[in-house]
Amino acid sequence: MQIRTDLAMESRDSAQGLQGVSYRTFTHGNIEEIHVCIETEEAAKALEKARGKYITLSHASLSHAAPGERIALSKALADILRPLLPPFGDLLVVGLGNRHITADALGSRVLDGMLITRHMKDITEPSLRGRLRGVCAVAPGVLGVTGMETAEVAQGIVEHVRPSAVIAIDALAARETSRICTTIQVTDTGIRPGSGVGNHRRGLTKETLGVPVIAIGVPMVVYASVIARDALSLLLEDMGLDEREHENAMEALVGKVTEHGLGELVVTPREVDELVGKVARIIAEGLNIALQPRLSEEEIGAMMHDGM
Amino acid sequence: MQIRTDLAMESRDSAQGLQGVSYRTFTHGNIEEIHVCIETEEAAKALEKARGKYITLSHASLSHAAPGERIALSKALADILRPLLPPFGDLLVVGLGNRHITADALGSRVLDGMLITRHMKDITEPSLRGRLRGVCAVAPGVLGVTGMETAEVAQGIVEHVRPSAVIAIDALAARETSRICTTIQVTDTGIRPGSGVGNHRRGLTKETLGVPVIAIGVPMVVYASVIARDALSLLLEDMGLDEREHENAMEALVGKVTEHGLGELVVTPREVDELVGKVARIIAEGLNIALQPRLSEEEIGAMMHDGM
Amino acid sequence: MQIRTDLAMESRDSAQGLQGVSYRTFTHGNIEEIHVCIETEEAAKALEKARGKYITLSHASLSHAAPGERIALSKALADILRPLLPPFGDLLVVGLGNRHITADALGSRVLDGMLITRHMKDITEPSLRGRLRGVCAVAPGVLGVTGMETAEVAQGIVEHVRPSAVIAIDALAARETSRICTTIQVTDTGIRPGSGVGNHRRGLTKETLGVPVIAIGVPMVVYASVIARDALSLLLEDMGLDEREHENAMEALVGKVTEHGLGELVVTPREVDELVGKVARIIAEGLNIALQPRLSEEEIGAMMHDGM
Amino acid sequence: MQIRTDLAMESRDSAQGLQGVSYRTFTHGNIEEIHVCIETEEAAKALEKARGKYITLSHASLSHAAPGERIALSKALADILRPLLPPFGDLLVVGLGNRHITADALGSRVLDGMLITRHMKDITEPSLRGRLRGVCAVAPGVLGVTGMETAEVAQGIVEHVRPSAVIAIDALAARETSRICTTIQVTDTGIRPGSGVGNHRRGLTKETLGVPVIAIGVPMVVYASVIARDALSLLLEDMGLDEREHENAMEALVGKVTEHGLGELVVTPREVDELVGKVARIIAEGLNIALQPRLSEEEIGAMMHDGM
Repeated sequence: MQIRTDLAMESRDSAQGLQGVSYRTFTHGNIEEIHVCIETEEAAKALEKARGKYITLSHASLSHAAPGERIALSKALADILRPLLPPFGDLLVVGLGNRHITADALGSRVLDGMLITRHMKDITEPSLRGRLRGVCAVAPGVLGVTGMETAEVAQGIVEHVRPSAVIAIDALAARETSRICTTIQVTDTGIRPGSGVGNHRRGLTKETLGVPVIAIGVPMVVYASVIARDALSLLLEDMGLDEREHENAMEALVGKVTEHGLGELVVTPREVDELVGKVARIIAEGLNIALQPRLSEEEIGAMMHDGM
Repeated sequence: MQIRTDLAMESRDSAQGLQGVSYRTFTHGNIEEIHVCIETEEAAKALEKARGKYITLSHASLSHAAPGERIALSKALADILRPLLPPFGDLLVVGLGNRHITADALGSRVLDGMLITRHMKDITEPSLRGRLRGVCAVAPGVLGVTGMETAEVAQGIVEHVRPSAVIAIDALAARETSRICTTIQVTDTGIRPGSGVGNHRRGLTKETLGVPVIAIGVPMVVYASVIARDALSLLLEDMGLDEREHENAMEALVGKVTEHGLGELVVTPREVDELVGKVARIIAEGLNIALQPRLSEEEIGAMMHDGM
Repeated sequence: MQIRTDLAMESRDSAQGLQGVSYRTFTHGNIEEIHVCIETEEAAKALEKARGKYITLSHASLSHAAPGERIALSKALADILRPLLPPFGDLLVVGLGNRHITADALGSRVLDGMLITRHMKDITEPSLRGRLRGVCAVAPGVLGVTGMETAEVAQGIVEHVRPSAVIAIDALAARETSRICTTIQVTDTGIRPGSGVGNHRRGLTKETLGVPVIAIGVPMVVYASVIARDALSLLLEDMGLDEREHENAMEALVGKVTEHGLGELVVTPREVDELVGKVARIIAEGLNIALQPRLSEEEIGAMMHDGM
Repeated sequence: MQIRTDLAMESRDSAQGLQGVSYRTFTHGNIEEIHVCIETEEAAKALEKARGKYITLSHASLSHAAPGERIALSKALADILRPLLPPFGDLLVVGLGNRHITADALGSRVLDGMLITRHMKDITEPSLRGRLRGVCAVAPGVLGVTGMETAEVAQGIVEHVRPSAVIAIDALAARETSRICTTIQVTDTGIRPGSGVGNHRRGLTKETLGVPVIAIGVPMVVYASVIARDALSLLLEDMGLDEREHENAMEALVGKVTEHGLGELVVTPREVDELVGKVARIIAEGLNIALQPRLSEEEIGAMMHDGM
């Protein structure tokens, strides 16, 4: 059952009984938070994830949240982000993915809603001076469009701009159909090679960029084989199969599906145009709140307006 | 197994041994054409499709066809359309669907590539005069966006514009995963209530509009339950089940999937932005060729350029 | 000086001493309202405008209004619209212009922000039932794109939908450079032939549609010759020319400019993409408030969210 | 008369009698080429332009060229570019400007039509191997959107990607109204601070990037004061004023216009959406031909198709 997941919370099953991993779950209203911490190299190896923190924010109707809920989600996201940020220095937000493929456009869409301040710290009005944290942002595009790895572009920019941290936004592949557009994952481990909708060949991590990399991801696509497996799981649940039989049936399915090419099909919800817009707004608002702790939400709103 | 299909060719299995239906298949190069003709009311009832002609044009890489193949597909489509058109009179092309949902935007995207001539028959240059067939087009939008049924809008326009036929373009739901973006269906039976990605509540047919309605559709989405069923089918094939057992397993799957809400998920390929553009271009080119028999392809190209 | 204006307020100079025209000006905050009423056929002839009411709402930074001002403008627009609407019946909003030309896209962009209710009057939740006024909307596209006059399409739809009034939104040409994106005109005289950025060949009026037509327009473009004339006017002001000499100089300029083709150039501000978005939002919000008097602004906001 | 021009050809008048500048004009069909070479520091100072080559390609209907003419223009552009390119090494194309402001989107729109090859040199099919020149591209966005100078981003990328030259594409401001969308300028002097629609605060030149920078620019906007001046010029021509009187009148005009804020208005043709698309296509095709001398146009076409 080798289906890749970008969400640490989905590896919970594999982690049962494993030392060096902690799980904590919080619920506030309809929002569920899962904090996974992979503390040892052994656990990291077993889960095929880097050591570090992985926090997911889930809400059954994340992408259809009413205005009030949307703001609650933005604030919950800001609360998750704040302790991961370095206390000083400019921040560089990197929007990954391909803006021309809606299902992969989350990164560039988040940037559209962000308050960019690095260039105006000195020229802004006196009342704001000294209260703006410098934020800059770039959506470098994907390898097939630019001929350059996102990591190459990001490295070059980091060396010139010298931010104290990078925040990378990316669309992910889900391993459970129900995760699509319902979960935001934040991690301090950066973007790993092979992850994301666009399958990054190189990572964006502290090792490659030289500064901490906080990654924010949302599952936007799912392999057809995952849908098939989720459906078969539902069917097998009632059959009283033991775990071994269950596993065998699943493996047979995935084998068959792969053999016929069905499994390679990657799909996204029909309404992806709308979903990506709504989720991008939540993330942008959460980032604006977390990155500008000395501004009120009203001040952020007014500056967003002026800047547009 | 109540999964709706908009493609007559997909009802072939149900039609086995049925009187009043003819199937003919043609192959030229990599292009496959299936001509289904439902000739009697009994057959129409059995297949839950209206009496009339249904012609599908299929190509495994329809949406990735190289320029040469693309032109071959456009011409094959024109050959299918030509005998279905009335010999005289203006033609009204109606692009159905929601332009803001990429998976449902086929109709409006086709219009972007069409040669519109109704308004220039009298003002065009002398060399073209008398050689232009009047073509007009509208993409009225969907009920949720306009507050009006597409059929209402189309009726009003038809009564004013008085075309000799309507050509309606729509995105469809596939009943087999492999049909997505690989098949174009042309039918002289119009658009039926309940069909299409957007589920039209009223039809666009000769009965409602008063003139013949030729519908062109391409499967762009698929229910998650269809993917699950296709996958299970592959798995069951090898198990030596009899037809009854096979049916039972499938029904159980669909039941389970529906119960958990997974089946209601409608998905589209990750690359839908690109796919819809490529398929729309083939259809627009095919329509331009079929609707303007007295113009050469070069003249159509030059007029498209001037008109833009 | 034959430069067409779509704004009645700009004909004030020509109207001096004319019987049968009333002008009233109101100021609230930075918002200026001018109410022009053309009461007699003679005045209508002299001003080359139809008899009726023309109300303009002006604000020097209409398209850059801060959120608070934006809402004030929306409400002021609603106050202007309300007395012009028939008390009962569905309303049809027609967005004129070409959505693919940003400077002509105001009509279709306003529709994107409107609350459409005609199709949900019966299916909505009990608390709203009886409180929704039926609103439907269509952006039929321009003659060059559809092959049909907007008026033809509107007529057909009106006959089927039977609204009690039509509200038509259009981008206008300004006769004074300073009017671009700073003034919204509302009139109960409809859209006249030859008006608008796209130069409608037929009008949308009570005579052609059979129901009252309220038109909302905003100057989005200006002829290069208008810019030249405005500049020359500034220059001549100081020269102590008498009125006749002034007129002669202006006529000479317009003649020269026309002769060299410069005058035919129609231009729009570099930032038109942003401007049209901001103005469209003000108009859509104003319409939503005026068309749904039994809903609070919060209810409108929540329904807009759900409907999207 | 301090109106900035980004086109060297527009400084021809100021250059009359100046040593160290050469002008040559070629005409082929409807295409006019002007080659300006600023050879000495004195000439550079006098013209306020850097030393180097400036070649303009003009065509009265550049943005409305029929398909055949379009290809002729692309090839003429390729002929101009070829001798300016270094013989070996990868090339980095930088699309300047703001993709969300149509009049400033030329840079990012050109990239959409380019053949990007740097990442596929090793993975391409054998028949192409060894025949592809490595091309990569980025549209970094503008300072107000990213918080970073384009030059900063470009520097960082150049240091990582190590191209043998940079090609920068930008929308320009015209000093003569008739230049808008009719002229493409190519120069080997790079992008200078203060140039372009977006007014770059830092340049992209050999000094800042360390490799030769070839800039391609097209006037897309014009100041309202330029339109006024062009109109007044036409008017004054007939008046038999001496040069001094003429200059005085023009200065008075610009002074007045500036005083009233009219001069700051920057405008673009109403049809800018269409114009930028057409011009971007010519430039992208010209670049593809020039950058891939070992590929035929058919091979470029086929690869563009596959890559999309």
